[in-house]
Amino acid sequence: MDEREYYERLETTAENPSELFEHLEQRCVDGRTYYVMSDARHGVERGTVLFEDADAVVRGYPSTPRILVLDTGVSSFFEEEETVFAEEKLDGFNVRVADVGEPLAFTRGGYVCPYTTARVRELLDLSAFFADHPEKMLCAELIGPETPYTTHDYAGVDTNSVRVFGIRDRESGAPLSVEERRALCEEYEFPQPRLFGPYETAAAAEEVRSVIEELDAADREGVVLKSPDCESMVKYTTESQHHDDLAYAFSLPFERGRDFVFSRVVREAFQAAEFDEDDARLRERARDLGESILLPMVETIEDVRDGEAAGERHTVRGDPEAIDALFDHLSDLSMTLEVEDDCREDGERVVEFVKVAESTTDRVQYYLEGGTYDE
Amino acid sequence: MDEREYYERLETTAENPSELFEHLEQRCVDGRTYYVMSDARHGVERGTVLFEDADAVVRGYPSTPRILVLDTGVSSFFEEEETVFAEEKLDGFNVRVADVGEPLAFTRGGYVCPYTTARVRELLDLSAFFADHPEKMLCAELIGPETPYTTHDYAGVDTNSVRVFGIRDRESGAPLSVEERRALCEEYEFPQPRLFGPYETAAAAEEVRSVIEELDAADREGVVLKSPDCESMVKYTTESQHHDDLAYAFSLPFERGRDFVFSRVVREAFQAAEFDEDDARLRERARDLGESILLPMVETIEDVRDGEAAGERHTVRGDPEAIDALFDHLSDLSMTLEVEDDCREDGERVVEFVKVAESTTDRVQYYLEGGTYDE
Repeated sequence: MDEREYYERLETTAENPSELFEHLEQRCVDGRTYYVMSDARHGVERGTVLFEDADAVVRGYPSTPRILVLDTGVSSFFEEEETVFAEEKLDGFNVRVADVGEPLAFTRGGYVCPYTTARVRELLDLSAFFADHPEKMLCAELIGPETPYTTHDYAGVDTNSVRVFGIRDRESGAPLSVEERRALCEEYEFPQPRLFGPYETAAAAEEVRSVIEELDAADREGVVLKSPDCESMVKYTTESQHHDDLAYAFSLPFERGRDFVFSRVVREAFQAAEFDEDDARLRERARDLGESILLPMVETIEDVRDGEAAGERHTVRGDPEAIDALFDHLSDLSMTLEVEDDCREDGERVVEFVKVAESTTDRVQYYLEGGTYDE
Repeated sequence: MDEREYYERLETTAENPSELFEHLEQRCVDGRTYYVMSDARHGVERGTVLFEDADAVVRGYPSTPRILVLDTGVSSFFEEEETVFAEEKLDGFNVRVADVGEPLAFTRGGYVCPYTTARVRELLDLSAFFADHPEKMLCAELIGPETPYTTHDYAGVDTNSVRVFGIRDRESGAPLSVEERRALCEEYEFPQPRLFGPYETAAAAEEVRSVIEELDAADREGVVLKSPDCESMVKYTTESQHHDDLAYAFSLPFERGRDFVFSRVVREAFQAAEFDEDDARLRERARDLGESILLPMVETIEDVRDGEAAGERHTVRGDPEAIDALFDHLSDLSMTLEVEDDCREDGERVVEFVKVAESTTDRVQYYLEGGTYDE
């Protein structure tokens, strides 16, 4: 490929093309070759992909910082004269959808997910949108109980659904403003996450706090706070999300426990110090936190003791070819899968499967047999 | 120094002297130079020290593995025909005491601790012991509320005290058997940890479980199980110790939280799966776990918000010179100390001080001011 050309188009901080291109991974989709940045480097986001045959750069989605204290976080992150929008942050699977010859859904890491690609093609009128806006990408979340990655239930979503939370220039990554994007999504009938605000910056923390309380009561994840131009974004999450994350992590302790636990406890502690005015409320949060850590792990230990493999259970539904492609994709990612149910419903294939958590299964078995833990 | 000679005496797996000696650190005590292995390498334990002027090798204390499941752990770790002793594991500061010209107390990392050295010289009749056994080292725990390292209270220990839990050949590291060591300690009137057993291996798990329940009820740490010859040792700890560890770690979350939390949760979960037969008991453990994590961290956040530095508070008491030497030693370890009280009682100097937890203080302050957390 013409490295010099792409080096310039990427506006990287790398000093020369080879400094950047030695980090590009070559991958394949439907017989086409493309290149991926699998880590953020030299000012280029993780998951950025290059399709030379379509003359296309698709920038990675930028990582969104998090505030731990709502009150001071909002006022120090946003300009005083700005207003602030809050959009609901959904617990799903984040993809970018771009038309690189055909519309493809790219994961955060720059893989093409065939399942999500099939779902967005079915659920969104992509041909109309990309005919008018070929240089844009949709930033979207696949949510619902039937996805191969997440299982969070949302009221009204029986299988899965898509929410478009951003539209960006695919080559520069520049976002549309909140208002432009919401108008454009309405024009093409793309579902979006709930919008709260705009709020005056000085009043935003208090307003968002009541939004967070409402979302928490409904077991929903949280919000992304956005400046009107979308150039500044920061996230903040609910207690129920922290506990859900921990329950998930400790159902697979030796896959996820170590990485998840500290950051979630940190989020909880700052939220408690800000929100929990009385001792009884704080103690209730602490107890729920403890239950979300210990109970799933004990359940996993008991399952392994009973001869079951630990793992994550998912259901997927769709066109048989897309399902085949999904399983090929998951195998390429070296996952061990166990299919528990595989049937047809209304011409669609419905597969229930477990992503086997091998570290957890093996290590729990080893300790149950009396193995020692060296520190 | 004669590297070849010490290379041979250490019985290392290193292929040549320089492979080993490049890892030795040179340190000083009272104008004398000595050499330390600061990490375990080539079959030589962490904290092993060499005093050339005293022709002495003092081996590091071996790391003791841990079992997570008492029942299968005991039966797979110990030989069926053996009996098993349990000795109480104390929550204190582990040192080796050896006579290298004079008796010195070495920390796990191979530092000479002047405070512990002064305490063991006062509390144990070392001159009588080392006159008879110059080649041995005492493995001992400094316990009680007045030590510069730990603060666990033990009934009957108002200030600090020493328990000798092992005697070894200082050069080979070979231990005395449990019975030999207990007899020798009695001869020199060295206090020892409580002894339980011996138990038949087949019955040991059940017996130790009731010991653990008794220790747990008294907020004590746990046991070290030992084969009669002391060649095999494995540890097992109480629920109250896990929760105490977590409460300590999350009072200093950005110093200790990340490293401590996962391993303690793992211990708790396996113990719960083995011990907690009903759901109410399990839920109580989970809630206590959550409180031991969240409440101390929220308290630390509130303290920092109120302008206090986070840290560990300790009290030390002793000969003024030994106290001076201790503070020099802690400063050499790059600790930031704040003296809160410094007075004389009965000719002894008594100092209350805080080891300032700089990471915790700085990071909590940063997040309280609205700083973002990048993941």
